[in-house]
Amino acid sequence: MLKPLLSLTGGLIATMALSITQANPLPQGSISVAEVLRDRALESSDPYSIVESLTVEVGPRRAGTEGDRRAVAWAQKKMKELGFDRVYTEQIDVPRWVRGHAQAEVVAPFPQPLVVSSLGYGIATPEGGLTAEIVEFPNLEALLKAPADKVKGKIAFINKRMEKVRTGEGYGPAVQGRSKGMQAAAEKGAAALLLRSVGTDSDRFAHTGMMSIDGVETPVPALALSAPDANLLEAMLKRGKPVLVKLNVESERLNDGPSFNVVGEITGREKPEEVMIIGAHLDSWDEGTGALDDGAGVAIVMETARLISELPERPRRTLRVVLFGAEEIGLVGAKQYVESHLDELDNIVAVSESDFGAGKVWRFDTRLPESKFDIADQMMQLLAPLGIERGNNKSYGGPDSSVFVARGVPAFGLYQNGMDYFDYHHTPNDTLDKVDPEKLRQNVAAWVVMSFLTTEMEGDLGRVPTSAE
Amino acid sequence: MLKPLLSLTGGLIATMALSITQANPLPQGSISVAEVLRDRALESSDPYSIVESLTVEVGPRRAGTEGDRRAVAWAQKKMKELGFDRVYTEQIDVPRWVRGHAQAEVVAPFPQPLVVSSLGYGIATPEGGLTAEIVEFPNLEALLKAPADKVKGKIAFINKRMEKVRTGEGYGPAVQGRSKGMQAAAEKGAAALLLRSVGTDSDRFAHTGMMSIDGVETPVPALALSAPDANLLEAMLKRGKPVLVKLNVESERLNDGPSFNVVGEITGREKPEEVMIIGAHLDSWDEGTGALDDGAGVAIVMETARLISELPERPRRTLRVVLFGAEEIGLVGAKQYVESHLDELDNIVAVSESDFGAGKVWRFDTRLPESKFDIADQMMQLLAPLGIERGNNKSYGGPDSSVFVARGVPAFGLYQNGMDYFDYHHTPNDTLDKVDPEKLRQNVAAWVVMSFLTTEMEGDLGRVPTSAE
Repeated sequence: MLKPLLSLTGGLIATMALSITQANPLPQGSISVAEVLRDRALESSDPYSIVESLTVEVGPRRAGTEGDRRAVAWAQKKMKELGFDRVYTEQIDVPRWVRGHAQAEVVAPFPQPLVVSSLGYGIATPEGGLTAEIVEFPNLEALLKAPADKVKGKIAFINKRMEKVRTGEGYGPAVQGRSKGMQAAAEKGAAALLLRSVGTDSDRFAHTGMMSIDGVETPVPALALSAPDANLLEAMLKRGKPVLVKLNVESERLNDGPSFNVVGEITGREKPEEVMIIGAHLDSWDEGTGALDDGAGVAIVMETARLISELPERPRRTLRVVLFGAEEIGLVGAKQYVESHLDELDNIVAVSESDFGAGKVWRFDTRLPESKFDIADQMMQLLAPLGIERGNNKSYGGPDSSVFVARGVPAFGLYQNGMDYFDYHHTPNDTLDKVDPEKLRQNVAAWVVMSFLTTEMEGDLGRVPTSAE
Repeated sequence: MLKPLLSLTGGLIATMALSITQANPLPQGSISVAEVLRDRALESSDPYSIVESLTVEVGPRRAGTEGDRRAVAWAQKKMKELGFDRVYTEQIDVPRWVRGHAQAEVVAPFPQPLVVSSLGYGIATPEGGLTAEIVEFPNLEALLKAPADKVKGKIAFINKRMEKVRTGEGYGPAVQGRSKGMQAAAEKGAAALLLRSVGTDSDRFAHTGMMSIDGVETPVPALALSAPDANLLEAMLKRGKPVLVKLNVESERLNDGPSFNVVGEITGREKPEEVMIIGAHLDSWDEGTGALDDGAGVAIVMETARLISELPERPRRTLRVVLFGAEEIGLVGAKQYVESHLDELDNIVAVSESDFGAGKVWRFDTRLPESKFDIADQMMQLLAPLGIERGNNKSYGGPDSSVFVARGVPAFGLYQNGMDYFDYHHTPNDTLDKVDPEKLRQNVAAWVVMSFLTTEMEGDLGRVPTSAE
């Protein structure tokens, strides 16, 4: 497969400059190369082997842990094997935390164990655990509005269900309870927080995830309950008697420590200083193996760059794959990346991240100046045959990309089908068997079109309004 | 709904004896009553509330535990509430076991935690755990055939996948490794056994279950791995380096203790000494709440009896609901039941058990003398509209029923769709949300037809060949 591609695309790239017209900002030569890359991605790319390698050889890799360190080493080695021109790391500082065990059980009126998971950076219970009555709230707002004497000394139980849709849009409303529930409970003198998992499954897995911990002066223990366990508490409460729950949690917050953003580049042949960033995050939560979140994204962007590196010549600009560290605990790697690359931001022509699992891409969103929509329209010619429709111009390009977008960097968003994503998200069940090699190839096909055309185009994509504007 | 049924069926039962013909052993009057019961089951029975009550108010109830004792109390109270004529218990002796914790992790070449579950009545590791290389076998037979020096001092890893089919027929071949794997490993000097879970899901739950422990002189620790974890070990082994696993298990075997079969009867009006037994098992494994295994069965047979108890008069024979204890650990309750009821066996006209989850009944199997097939044919007239087809005459009537069948008692088998049953079987994920109230009603509709017609029929069902014959 390799030889015909090389000879074909070599000629095409050489003739690109001749065919530019105003109506079509991307020359036909580039389009033709992108089409070849797309079809090659579908037929013979192998992103699955990358996520397989990451999950088998590294597995869980929460920021600042030993697994994280192994992941950083793995990523550099893999990028070198794949033929990147430059591979390097940039150190970041990350808050660290020991999960320890977390146990919960109903002690009255119907003694039963519960399946729970500590929420990120939560604190321990007192030695020997704590036992208190639970008090139920349908959502965070209800807890915020409750009089403190209804909550004081009790375990606040936020019991909000998340809507299951392809876009994952149920996440925003549901995650509020996880982000801010512990603080709300703490401020009203609660003994602890129990949260119905932010997830769309009905499996007996609790979904962990990060809480807002900054500025919480007297934090309380905070645990997610699996959906069946939240149902169980709900059913017990309906019977009208006080429900007493015992919690025993052993978490510990540590001092900050080092982690790394891992970077691999395909260096541009004409304007190496101009950069398109395609990203994913290298860290994961610690109870699964991070196959969907975000091993799949790591594989998609690495394989995209590898395919482009096989062309007979480098694209005009640099394609930079950034595997961000510590995304899960607050976009820590991306924020530090942008801070330490302020001087370079104007040269980052666009950014995009793959961080929504391993479903097929079905929509192409952008964040571009209106004057550049024609470029996206041309990309759509190659994306539409992949089953992708044109979306909106409100993309923030993925979680880590949003930090760049806030600074005016244009973004692309290849939106995956996320119907099942929150079934597995942040649970022990985020494992390799949930990844379909075929769907992953479709992702790479879309990513290689977008990435090649952006690094190869003449002109630029301008800037977008910053969050300050 | 109750009044019309009462007046209708009162008259029908009274006229039954008049309409018997040789061609149709069950009189039209009985058929008509059974039809009314069936439709009432579909429209207004509420088996779901029974399994809801059991799982919420009791939950896990492994034989010989505190949960088991609560389940026994719950069952008696519930049967009395439902209007059974007699409710009583019969004590049994059960082996007891403390699960304790079970942890496993790969320590080399790719350190990662594994999700495991101790197999029933397994032993602990030495203090501090044990670490050994794993050696993979595709199935039990391969382990049995392996030279001892290939296994000695290592952790035997049986990696057999189970086939997923509606009948659950993949279970038999797969469960061999669980039943006999530990003994086979122990006899070859293995340090421990790791077993790919006997299950059809790809969720990160290990499936527990009973092992053959009798006669194993030097048992070794034995753990089930979730399917994703078995995949992980498989993938590591393919890389060709020794895979070292550390196990830390804290189980403990206790002396035998008491449990109970719980019995509730609708006493026959003419031949109370003749009995149809409809059963389910009250015990469950301890990591889920036993909704599918076998809370659903408990609900189906209890609601069946309740519907029949609402008729204006009792059926001719006694309908006896037996909730067997300690099924999960080797049909312990059923075996002791039969032993202590040997004098009564000839009066047990038929037996059947619901113990295959909460799927719709799709097939009606029997174990009858050929001369009695016409009775089953008549039952089919009322079962066919429920989407049930006539099956074979090889039924053993369910696990506990098989002990009766071996003694010559005829059996019925209302076969449920078990496509998903082994996704949840013996895992923490066996919870109430997996039970569909509509499907449960369809079950009761079938059970009430079979149970009423058997308790009401003239004549009998004879005997079937015993296992000794």
